[in-house]
Amino acid sequence: MTKKIILDCDPGHDDAVAILLAVGNPEIELLGVTTVGGNQSIEKVTYNARAVLEKAHATDIPVYRGAGRPLVRPAQAAATIHGETGLDGVELPEPHRPLETDHAVKFIIDTIMSEEPGTVTLVPTGPLTNIAMAVRLEPRIVERVKEVVLMGGGYHVGNWSSVAEFNIMVDPEAAHIVFNEPWKVTMVGLDLTHQALCTPVVQKDIESVGTDLAQFVSGLMDFFRLSYQNNQDFVDPPVHDPCTVAYLIDPSIVQTRRCPVDIELTGTLTLGMTVADLRGPEPSEEECHTQVATKLDFDKFWALVKNAIECIG
Amino acid sequence: MTKKIILDCDPGHDDAVAILLAVGNPEIELLGVTTVGGNQSIEKVTYNARAVLEKAHATDIPVYRGAGRPLVRPAQAAATIHGETGLDGVELPEPHRPLETDHAVKFIIDTIMSEEPGTVTLVPTGPLTNIAMAVRLEPRIVERVKEVVLMGGGYHVGNWSSVAEFNIMVDPEAAHIVFNEPWKVTMVGLDLTHQALCTPVVQKDIESVGTDLAQFVSGLMDFFRLSYQNNQDFVDPPVHDPCTVAYLIDPSIVQTRRCPVDIELTGTLTLGMTVADLRGPEPSEEECHTQVATKLDFDKFWALVKNAIECIG
Amino acid sequence: MTKKIILDCDPGHDDAVAILLAVGNPEIELLGVTTVGGNQSIEKVTYNARAVLEKAHATDIPVYRGAGRPLVRPAQAAATIHGETGLDGVELPEPHRPLETDHAVKFIIDTIMSEEPGTVTLVPTGPLTNIAMAVRLEPRIVERVKEVVLMGGGYHVGNWSSVAEFNIMVDPEAAHIVFNEPWKVTMVGLDLTHQALCTPVVQKDIESVGTDLAQFVSGLMDFFRLSYQNNQDFVDPPVHDPCTVAYLIDPSIVQTRRCPVDIELTGTLTLGMTVADLRGPEPSEEECHTQVATKLDFDKFWALVKNAIECIG
Amino acid sequence: MTKKIILDCDPGHDDAVAILLAVGNPEIELLGVTTVGGNQSIEKVTYNARAVLEKAHATDIPVYRGAGRPLVRPAQAAATIHGETGLDGVELPEPHRPLETDHAVKFIIDTIMSEEPGTVTLVPTGPLTNIAMAVRLEPRIVERVKEVVLMGGGYHVGNWSSVAEFNIMVDPEAAHIVFNEPWKVTMVGLDLTHQALCTPVVQKDIESVGTDLAQFVSGLMDFFRLSYQNNQDFVDPPVHDPCTVAYLIDPSIVQTRRCPVDIELTGTLTLGMTVADLRGPEPSEEECHTQVATKLDFDKFWALVKNAIECIG
Repeated sequence: MTKKIILDCDPGHDDAVAILLAVGNPEIELLGVTTVGGNQSIEKVTYNARAVLEKAHATDIPVYRGAGRPLVRPAQAAATIHGETGLDGVELPEPHRPLETDHAVKFIIDTIMSEEPGTVTLVPTGPLTNIAMAVRLEPRIVERVKEVVLMGGGYHVGNWSSVAEFNIMVDPEAAHIVFNEPWKVTMVGLDLTHQALCTPVVQKDIESVGTDLAQFVSGLMDFFRLSYQNNQDFVDPPVHDPCTVAYLIDPSIVQTRRCPVDIELTGTLTLGMTVADLRGPEPSEEECHTQVATKLDFDKFWALVKNAIECIG
Repeated sequence: MTKKIILDCDPGHDDAVAILLAVGNPEIELLGVTTVGGNQSIEKVTYNARAVLEKAHATDIPVYRGAGRPLVRPAQAAATIHGETGLDGVELPEPHRPLETDHAVKFIIDTIMSEEPGTVTLVPTGPLTNIAMAVRLEPRIVERVKEVVLMGGGYHVGNWSSVAEFNIMVDPEAAHIVFNEPWKVTMVGLDLTHQALCTPVVQKDIESVGTDLAQFVSGLMDFFRLSYQNNQDFVDPPVHDPCTVAYLIDPSIVQTRRCPVDIELTGTLTLGMTVADLRGPEPSEEECHTQVATKLDFDKFWALVKNAIECIG
Repeated sequence: MTKKIILDCDPGHDDAVAILLAVGNPEIELLGVTTVGGNQSIEKVTYNARAVLEKAHATDIPVYRGAGRPLVRPAQAAATIHGETGLDGVELPEPHRPLETDHAVKFIIDTIMSEEPGTVTLVPTGPLTNIAMAVRLEPRIVERVKEVVLMGGGYHVGNWSSVAEFNIMVDPEAAHIVFNEPWKVTMVGLDLTHQALCTPVVQKDIESVGTDLAQFVSGLMDFFRLSYQNNQDFVDPPVHDPCTVAYLIDPSIVQTRRCPVDIELTGTLTLGMTVADLRGPEPSEEECHTQVATKLDFDKFWALVKNAIECIG
Repeated sequence: MTKKIILDCDPGHDDAVAILLAVGNPEIELLGVTTVGGNQSIEKVTYNARAVLEKAHATDIPVYRGAGRPLVRPAQAAATIHGETGLDGVELPEPHRPLETDHAVKFIIDTIMSEEPGTVTLVPTGPLTNIAMAVRLEPRIVERVKEVVLMGGGYHVGNWSSVAEFNIMVDPEAAHIVFNEPWKVTMVGLDLTHQALCTPVVQKDIESVGTDLAQFVSGLMDFFRLSYQNNQDFVDPPVHDPCTVAYLIDPSIVQTRRCPVDIELTGTLTLGMTVADLRGPEPSEEECHTQVATKLDFDKFWALVKNAIECIG
């Protein structure tokens, strides 16, 4: 049985790969893409989402624009990583399918409340603003969703500060809301995604698919590599966001560890840190509704990505 | 010309008086009552709002249920002040008009976006959760509303802590959102509302109206007086919320002072304080979009309340 | 019986007047002057303290240098108010008495532990760094001192921020230590000291003493007036620090109100605020060891200052 | 050439082992032991320090009592780990050498200022209250000490909270002071000390020394093992404090990594966390004065401890 997901994202080079993986893998039924201001402005990332779907011939997938800024704090963009457009380095097709008129938050609520209980998985790969607003407007979605699998945070790794990751730090109050609701949350954080490096070997392998789309992905990776070399001392870029989708397709790709996770809201040095309590033995599922991703099966992960690109054609 | 308002409240004894003043005064066109969890649970305050409107024969006014809890922090109720029902001390009629099905936040957005720009005033007298969600879901309401006149905060007075007031302290993040949007905000805080005491003379005067409704209000005041005597060392109860409506009916009843106001979110002793900068001369309207209420015309205020009760009959 | 005091200060124009009042008034026995970095660097304020004592022919008073910076946070100076020297606007005499070699903190501890219990009053008029270190190094001083009468803070007034005063905000951790020890603390804050304005009439009256010292004080006031006109929208300068000494000479000059006072250490907008709980009735001396100054007897205060200048000659 | 150290500690089972290692190893010249309230009250840990030195026949080593409580926050003790006496589980000899009369802070300052510059190493293994007060009272010690090698904190591990360690969390302001002075600081934190487990094999090996002292250490370890089993889900107890001394004796025992480290003072979940910035390449010694211990040579470490016990006899 396929897995129904809503991908809530801010494309973003790695968000784009997440979209492609969700579109191209037969295990995933992508109910819709919702956007949130993060890597770039809501206008830019919404356009990017539509253009990536156009590129993937996935014009059956609706796109809903969401929150343009964090709940409480001023917006920040990650232009140093994703460039001025949010998807610098490639040429984007003109999207033909119009943007939906409903707000992303309404789509999220309506979808979860109308689909069978326990069937829809939320996959946020940007700031958690939309998800937080949805749960506050319609608290019943908490018991209706299957689970939340999000890219964000890190229990031992930060990027936007020493100990905080961009998606969480940009809207820590939204993250606090999402992590504190009693739904199942899998945090696919930097601890995991820094293992998802697009090495030259991986990139060559993707290029070998030989399609225009494969070349497009390779172009994304070229720009992403330079961004990470220039800004974060990486050799190869970590392709964060598709790790969430890969985990849903095949949980054996991502090892996890249950532990309480909460969001720091008042720290001077630690604002937006995903504080994980790893002391003592692993709690049971009944004791603990949050888990963190720890170890990636690198080969399986990139095989999935390549296959999706092949599938799309 | 009448003033169109949406009253966003959590009745609550003084909220009830605010509803009556809005219903009974011909200057006010009450577009709808929206509710928010605060003085009591969202279920109770929503029922109370409907019952008070029933009591006021105002079954033309729709009621919309809103947020049941603050944005980020756990809910707190003010049962010590308003009792277990939120309106302890009086008997409430069964409300006949059904609750509207839309969410309060949707009603607020739809109303502001469909009415003429600059005609709708928001009058929140509870935690600011609904207003904050509305402005994040539809940022254009900021330039569409006429103004926001809220009961909450205090520049020199606190009640829920040394320096913070209940409505703001319960959902400080929502208050932070509301005070930081560039609409005109008038903060009718404890500095002002602690002047709106229902003295025995005032209460007798209200009773002299001789209607069932006047007796109902007097019953509310009896309970409210005891609450304030037992909990906050008052002799007579301060009737906070109708001061907002009174200000809209006749601005000469409430003196104001423009000054920057912001909400403390990280203080240990000052969480939820409405920090007003009263240093230096009063800024101009262009420099400053927030103002605080400073001095009440006691006699005019209570005359308005009495008149409204008479008008309703 | 005279009152033994240690004046812990950072001269500073108003500190200088406090020194003169302590030297010139027969009720006060000034055991020593200790200095603390605040209005200007520790070197400058220590020199100023010595020079002011020289000017007052008080070379029997020892001066001890204390902390050059706050406990935890980086130093800030108030050069906008006191100028580059800390006493801009007058010519200072060369101090002949050498600086003592002991640290101010050691002098404070040794003095309190060697004088009769209950006889020494601490009078801090700068940041509370020295006092805080003394109490942590020798906790027994808490029960040995008579009381602490300090200039700092404000329950309804700020100057260095909307709600915080310079002395407290510069070293809030030190203030937290001092206010939380169970000794009697009288906070002479901005609420009181903003009443101690040096009007032109007052200044003329001081000048009428006709001495070189009177002219010196008048010169201080000229500079201080301009500072407050240019920086804080005052017409006449508030002469904060001598209010502490005046209160000790004649308590009828300063009305007080007992209330709990604590220091905000984590507020974003309220850091260093002296949070006073003024709700409810005034607590008893047994319930509450802190009090705040509320109302100044303006005429008596300035008469004391003038008399002291006359006495010194 | 031997290394001159001042051991600033709060014995404590592992502090006791640190004392023995410093006394018994010929590379270390123990100038004095200073005490600080931490694991237990200042009275108890000071007695324990003296008794451990008595047990080690080291009555030439002076003991100075220091701060009984943290700088700003209320005291906390670790009775769950070290028992009511702070050294539960063994019988202590009566110490014959009297306690010194000077305060620990005075001894620290006087020693550093009188010894050759660059020769004295501070080895704090408790809360950093004494060290922080010393540096504020006499800032010149910063350039006079050789270095600070402290047990405390953890870049990826906490014990007193999810992410903070006891010594730092108990007095975070003191830690903030110490980490922010420009002296060389080596943080031997839980990341390292959780490798210094006293396994049954290790303990047997120590017992094999066959002396009364070896039996004493084994008794300490028995109690310590139970504490850690009952409170922190350890099988064998981590013997934190002697890792500092071992590093000084033979730096090859402890691998380190330079990185900026600062102390979180305002976090709700992260108070007292030692926030290390491990992003990017390791900075140079000129760029960065702090480093963290990462990897222990287990065998060499325990061999040193055993040898010291043998040496003492």
